[in-house]
Amino acid sequence: MSETEENISRSPGDRPDPEAVAAALQAELLKRSAMIATAESLTGGQLGVLLSAAPGASETYLGGVVSYATGVKHRVLDVSEETVDKHGVVSAECAAEMAMGVRRLVGADYGVSTTGVAGPTEQEGKPVGLVYVGVAGPDGVTTKELHLDGDRAEIRKLSCLEAMSAAMATIVGVDG
Amino acid sequence: MSETEENISRSPGDRPDPEAVAAALQAELLKRSAMIATAESLTGGQLGVLLSAAPGASETYLGGVVSYATGVKHRVLDVSEETVDKHGVVSAECAAEMAMGVRRLVGADYGVSTTGVAGPTEQEGKPVGLVYVGVAGPDGVTTKELHLDGDRAEIRKLSCLEAMSAAMATIVGVDG
Repeated sequence: MSETEENISRSPGDRPDPEAVAAALQAELLKRSAMIATAESLTGGQLGVLLSAAPGASETYLGGVVSYATGVKHRVLDVSEETVDKHGVVSAECAAEMAMGVRRLVGADYGVSTTGVAGPTEQEGKPVGLVYVGVAGPDGVTTKELHLDGDRAEIRKLSCLEAMSAAMATIVGVDG
Repeated sequence: MSETEENISRSPGDRPDPEAVAAALQAELLKRSAMIATAESLTGGQLGVLLSAAPGASETYLGGVVSYATGVKHRVLDVSEETVDKHGVVSAECAAEMAMGVRRLVGADYGVSTTGVAGPTEQEGKPVGLVYVGVAGPDGVTTKELHLDGDRAEIRKLSCLEAMSAAMATIVGVDG
């Protein structure tokens, strides 16, 4: 059900345009009459902003949860205490449960999640730039581990880009 | 419990800096050891992005819900069917229930909400730029009706600014 891809390094230099990636994702969802939802930690709502930026966004984007605090991950997204105790909130396991949780919560076809360390300081003993994105769909859930460079704002932006790319891959059936 | 202020017109020209307003709000919350949560419709997560932008945001921002679709407003924020049937989602009543709903859902001291018409087309027969923001706190809930000028992106940004200003007013005890 769950697989993890690792060690994808991406620096600010080779970044595509987030709005263009969001538009492409929206087009793929529309083609399939599929709805997406977001569960965001370090990105704080930015993925939602991107997926709701264009007119007609309501045909593909349902909304989601900004689970910035750990309590919100438990309380609203039903991330298990055990997962957080064992692996921390910055983990593939947490990203997977967040994506599955929001998909179930709002009744979406796809749920996409972000969790990680935006900085400026480490968290759970994990380094700045360590980020996990998750995508839950009808066939299960996948996660991706990222090691991102840049400041807090850059890491948040890159996390959104990676989350959208991962969602796209799952939706079009490539490497999902 | 509920009061509505009306007819605040604001054009893009006289806009303060959103990051500065967010930082000021964060400072006031920190001073009071108070936590805030967001319930966003037309802003799609942008309020969450602003409230989580600065380092240390986790000391004042819990997270929230992007209730872009009406179903998410009902299902996650517990906005009543009756409110939506009677007043629509673009209404002071809906903004109030969203703010109260997210405050309760995540256990925050304050809940702040946005709902309105970002455009480019009208919604529920209501014009582009008609926006309601709500602030729920320990003393009840207030809402504000806004008539905003600008394109979709401008209206979303201005809505965030007004929501943060309204939250600030409630928190510091002015016109709340």
